[in-house]
Amino acid sequence: MRLKVVGHAVPRLDATAKVTGRAQYTIDLAIPGMVAGRLLRSPYPHAQIQRIDTSAARAVPGVLAVLTSDDVQALERTGERFVDQPLLARGRVRYEGEPVAAVAAVDEVIADEALERIEVDYDPLTVVADLDAALARNAPLIHEDITGAGQKPPANVRPVPGTNILNTVTISHGDVDCALAAADLVVEGRYEYPAVHQYPMEPHVAIAEMTGSGVTIWSGTRRPFVVRQEVAARFGIALTDVRVVVPYVGGAYGSKSYAKLEPLAAALARACGRPVRLTASVAEGFRTIMGHEIHVTITSGVSREGTLLARRTRVHVDVGGYADSGTVGPRIAASTAFRSNGPYRIPHVDLQGCAVYTNRVPGGALRGYGAPQVAWAYEAHTDALARALEMDPVTFRQKNLLARGETSVPGAHPMDGDTHGVLRRAATRVPRVRNARRGGAGALIGRGVAIGAKMSAENRTLSEAAVRLDADGGVTVLTGGVESGQGAQTVFAQIAAEELRVPLDRVRVTLPDTIVAPFDQGTGSSGTTIAVGQAIRSAAEQVRAQLTALAADALSTSKQSIRFDQGVARAGRKEIPFGDLIKHAATAGGEVVGRGAFRAEAGRRATFWELSAVAVRVEVDPETGVITLIRLVSAADVGRAIHPQMVEGQEEGSLVMGLGPALFEAVTYEGGQMLNPGLLDYRVPLAQDLPHEATETVLIEKGDGPGPYGAKGVGESGILAIAPAIANALFSAAGVQVTALPLTPERVFWAMRKAKGEPL
Amino acid sequence: MRLKVVGHAVPRLDATAKVTGRAQYTIDLAIPGMVAGRLLRSPYPHAQIQRIDTSAARAVPGVLAVLTSDDVQALERTGERFVDQPLLARGRVRYEGEPVAAVAAVDEVIADEALERIEVDYDPLTVVADLDAALARNAPLIHEDITGAGQKPPANVRPVPGTNILNTVTISHGDVDCALAAADLVVEGRYEYPAVHQYPMEPHVAIAEMTGSGVTIWSGTRRPFVVRQEVAARFGIALTDVRVVVPYVGGAYGSKSYAKLEPLAAALARACGRPVRLTASVAEGFRTIMGHEIHVTITSGVSREGTLLARRTRVHVDVGGYADSGTVGPRIAASTAFRSNGPYRIPHVDLQGCAVYTNRVPGGALRGYGAPQVAWAYEAHTDALARALEMDPVTFRQKNLLARGETSVPGAHPMDGDTHGVLRRAATRVPRVRNARRGGAGALIGRGVAIGAKMSAENRTLSEAAVRLDADGGVTVLTGGVESGQGAQTVFAQIAAEELRVPLDRVRVTLPDTIVAPFDQGTGSSGTTIAVGQAIRSAAEQVRAQLTALAADALSTSKQSIRFDQGVARAGRKEIPFGDLIKHAATAGGEVVGRGAFRAEAGRRATFWELSAVAVRVEVDPETGVITLIRLVSAADVGRAIHPQMVEGQEEGSLVMGLGPALFEAVTYEGGQMLNPGLLDYRVPLAQDLPHEATETVLIEKGDGPGPYGAKGVGESGILAIAPAIANALFSAAGVQVTALPLTPERVFWAMRKAKGEPL
Repeated sequence: MRLKVVGHAVPRLDATAKVTGRAQYTIDLAIPGMVAGRLLRSPYPHAQIQRIDTSAARAVPGVLAVLTSDDVQALERTGERFVDQPLLARGRVRYEGEPVAAVAAVDEVIADEALERIEVDYDPLTVVADLDAALARNAPLIHEDITGAGQKPPANVRPVPGTNILNTVTISHGDVDCALAAADLVVEGRYEYPAVHQYPMEPHVAIAEMTGSGVTIWSGTRRPFVVRQEVAARFGIALTDVRVVVPYVGGAYGSKSYAKLEPLAAALARACGRPVRLTASVAEGFRTIMGHEIHVTITSGVSREGTLLARRTRVHVDVGGYADSGTVGPRIAASTAFRSNGPYRIPHVDLQGCAVYTNRVPGGALRGYGAPQVAWAYEAHTDALARALEMDPVTFRQKNLLARGETSVPGAHPMDGDTHGVLRRAATRVPRVRNARRGGAGALIGRGVAIGAKMSAENRTLSEAAVRLDADGGVTVLTGGVESGQGAQTVFAQIAAEELRVPLDRVRVTLPDTIVAPFDQGTGSSGTTIAVGQAIRSAAEQVRAQLTALAADALSTSKQSIRFDQGVARAGRKEIPFGDLIKHAATAGGEVVGRGAFRAEAGRRATFWELSAVAVRVEVDPETGVITLIRLVSAADVGRAIHPQMVEGQEEGSLVMGLGPALFEAVTYEGGQMLNPGLLDYRVPLAQDLPHEATETVLIEKGDGPGPYGAKGVGESGILAIAPAIANALFSAAGVQVTALPLTPERVFWAMRKAKGEPL
Repeated sequence: MRLKVVGHAVPRLDATAKVTGRAQYTIDLAIPGMVAGRLLRSPYPHAQIQRIDTSAARAVPGVLAVLTSDDVQALERTGERFVDQPLLARGRVRYEGEPVAAVAAVDEVIADEALERIEVDYDPLTVVADLDAALARNAPLIHEDITGAGQKPPANVRPVPGTNILNTVTISHGDVDCALAAADLVVEGRYEYPAVHQYPMEPHVAIAEMTGSGVTIWSGTRRPFVVRQEVAARFGIALTDVRVVVPYVGGAYGSKSYAKLEPLAAALARACGRPVRLTASVAEGFRTIMGHEIHVTITSGVSREGTLLARRTRVHVDVGGYADSGTVGPRIAASTAFRSNGPYRIPHVDLQGCAVYTNRVPGGALRGYGAPQVAWAYEAHTDALARALEMDPVTFRQKNLLARGETSVPGAHPMDGDTHGVLRRAATRVPRVRNARRGGAGALIGRGVAIGAKMSAENRTLSEAAVRLDADGGVTVLTGGVESGQGAQTVFAQIAAEELRVPLDRVRVTLPDTIVAPFDQGTGSSGTTIAVGQAIRSAAEQVRAQLTALAADALSTSKQSIRFDQGVARAGRKEIPFGDLIKHAATAGGEVVGRGAFRAEAGRRATFWELSAVAVRVEVDPETGVITLIRLVSAADVGRAIHPQMVEGQEEGSLVMGLGPALFEAVTYEGGQMLNPGLLDYRVPLAQDLPHEATETVLIEKGDGPGPYGAKGVGESGILAIAPAIANALFSAAGVQVTALPLTPERVFWAMRKAKGEPL
């Protein structure tokens, strides 16, 4: 079948609305009677709360509600989920910026004034400032009772009593000790990836309005049905009584996957009887959720010929003061452990992930869910291994990459991507540098290559969709999939248009609203095109089947002879537009509706390996340590690009996002106090940071993914390999290995000084 | 099967929201950036427009758009429908209050100021003030070309060229001339029913907001999908691009069945680029839509024994200046003709309905769709026949009523109601008055009985529904059915709860929104419980089937042994809650969804006879002509009362609504100028007008209707027989027959004077 809409770079459905400013985000909504909510946040990273006095705040004219933990306690820790964070700090604060009280007032100025009048007496505790402090012997315990209120922890949470360790996951196979002892060469390295903020263009905002039996919430969440579940559990009300509406979303990158401001907005709305909009400033966004800082120690044994024999990894994840809705903290231990051996064939492994509480902002998902952090480690380490073996790093990788069908550890999803293809395609487009000293003004030139792989989320997923054909031949696609800028709407429309053989401009896609949208587990893990896309395809098949029957009847022919094209059913020379088929069936108008579902289950999984290789050429200034990108090529195995231009955009966006922590981006703390919560101090990639010569993305499309038309997911692969590729290029240029990101000029400068034996 | 929820007077789902004021109606909505729309209306009932100058209006600061016919002409008369009314008067105005120009401004004060500055030069034309004037030889023509722009009229519109007759429909059977000639007795009468306003508590309001490719409309319409179709046709855009959202509706009674303010609000929104709310005051509501004034001439022939032999009717319907979206005007001719013989067995009939243009406010549906007007005529006439035969009027009716299975005219839906039962039940509860002179202070006492029947709309209908069961066992019902105060939401929930065996408080019903709601042809003709109800039942059956399979699997038993009760599936002693079944199927949460449709078609029709009999005892003051109700009993055949209390409320509301035109309510004109467009001058029934002794409603439930559990529709029957019952009681009390409604004291007084031979 020749694809007419899928595989083409059609205009985005949301393009006009977005460039004209007509697209509505949560902040653009005005709910009648809506008032402003604000949060009082702890100035201490770790402290006991001795007393909160809200009387002066309550007395401010225009203040409608002031809530503390006492007021919302009844709402908390209900349901079956593991939840370690109270809605408002109860007794103790565990990170600087933790919400301590919430205010609703007629406007934000008054709300802020009320915040200033809330008196809180804190009794500061020893701050557990970072991973090392948290793991130190006799470290102060951040959660005395990790599971809270004596709850039995769920199966995936295995805290280590008497420590700050929330969860430890070990994946082992073979005998690593033996294999390391037998190896010709053993190389060990320790790598650090900093905390970075997801920094979506749209900060967190939630509006809540109490309704008769429940609450309606408007929020830019990526998982409306999950937030519905969380709010229902927090309030002890029925799922049907929580309505979550998601307007356009201005980016998420993992920061909007679970409830953030939504339950507090609802609590305020309940307290004051008015709709409440709770907004977070950028600085508050920094204090809401963070990408995890991760430290990885890797020990690998190789044979003289360059065959990987064994690997031990120890991954320490800083989850901050709490575990992001109780779910990310425990899971990140498992996913970083599992991913820490990379896309390599290693017979003996002992991989351990360890989620550790610190007095920092809670860590949550960030594009890649721990995979960029561990890829940084294992790919910088791969080059170190190649150097130790005196092998070409590409050749070394080629010797050890998983081939299609091989598993990284027994039981894992078999490699389904073209590991060799992406590596070759990226590497050949950035030739090796023969003379490192040919940059301008004495600059050093280097080339680095890395590959990254992320097996997508293992957990079972469910996405449903409905496709509706109206009596004039127009099509509406209903899903719970969120348009967060990634182009989901357009892809959904392409799939429906392709399946129904209607022009793309006849297709509309609704935005999610849990009261009417088909269920969706959530937009994340690069899985939306696969799961929602397949659901749409099934739904469209149902529509097509009904249309075929109607057309056969209307054209007095057999179902087999019916063909569809451009919104018309044909049989030989006879034809009838879809809309007329519907009128034929019901003079009243009516519609034809199909429903479809994609349920990840045995034999039909959404799981796939997201895979890309990155090759870079960089210039390093020996005087300043500044690294400048010259050329950047990524090659990704995307299965099938439903919309090639957007897929390239995803890959490139992902690369650029990874450029930040590679070169300059990091959230910095001093004794638990965040130092740079805003653009003035926090450095994100700018246009000038892009490669001077070229950025190129190569898509490998073999149509072998689990999604519609063989698509795989995209959006998380580019970020995996960019940082190690640059570090490897740095070594190629300057002969130094820097093992902590970002590769700031200062770090590079001092590393070069040290390498040269100059005084530090 | 014992019904647990259906058949019980459960609490209304919308009760708390409505009594606490939390329920949102269209007027309660605030769309961000929303501005005010207002309409300039013609002060002349009939005039040529020579010139419109909007320049001064446009110059008013804060005015955003001023539209006249020239601006909206491009939008008009598109699509396949017959449309005789331009959005704004073009060249000519045809009733006082016709919209001539539209303004959008930042607020209503400025909009009203702009209206005052629009200069319109009118050239008055001879006013066709009423039905008699319109039907007079050489009457001025209100529409020179009825079909407009040379369109071919659709099949159901048969205008009489050169007259004001929009449509004529004749239904005849047998040989009426012959049969009348052979009859022992021939009685003729002419009866008039006045124009009355539907007067919903909520006046017309529409909000329109242009979206990228179309428009979103919020409106209290009873037919969201029909309004969607009308707006799409007017603007030449796709159905998918028109979204109609219907909040709670504060009554409709026929006045909100087709587009009213919606297209103009959309035109204004398009012109000014802002959301526009267009509101109509009560006085403007009177100038928007009206219940038809109808004059009926009936000639009947009977045998000496009291058997009806032949009937000729001539029904003249005043449709006003336009035909209500082009649809009601033509159809009212057919429906009044068809209904004018009443629920009687008459072998020879010649029934004619005639829709006539006048220079009055357009006539639209009003509770009963012409049936109350013709029932007034045929039931007053039935008593006149009985008197002529010197028979008891109840006995005379009993001789001639259609029995179950008989048809009123060949091809009609056979009588499916208990005609004899309703008549007997009502009549026996208001005993005959033996001595007319036993009222207080010389008052005259009388008893009257009448029966009314309305075969529901013949046209094919389509209603769809979806029922969703969430992972915690909660149920959401999605339909396009409108909650306009009649209790639809509650009935929908009862049906879903009954079918799924869940407690009623676990069920929620969404309000219609065409972009997500299943298709529905519209709420009207007492058909919602039947059509939407059956669709919900089918949808729930699908859910049950899926649940049964899941339960059999989860409990390791056969499907046959599964029983449902209170949200739990049971097999023997094993049981599992519905929610756990869903979790069993998908750990991700998920839902079970069923879809159902009710399509009226051969062998499965929504059609039924809505039937009630009314008996009254009245007191007539011989000094003043004032009629006072003493006792009022209605008996209705409702098939099955899903919610007995609300069914009684419907019946009683319908009776009280009929009381208005029976006794005092009428829109009055003088030369085309409406004299009483508001409560100060327009008399609606008040609590003090209710019967002094008792109002009683008897429901006959034989479970023989086409709706779920054998339900029939309700809400339009009480209004049918109340006016003739009172007129018949007036004759019984005072010996006078008044043939024009309302039976005002003045009319009764002069009729009594005339009967006594006193000077007039």
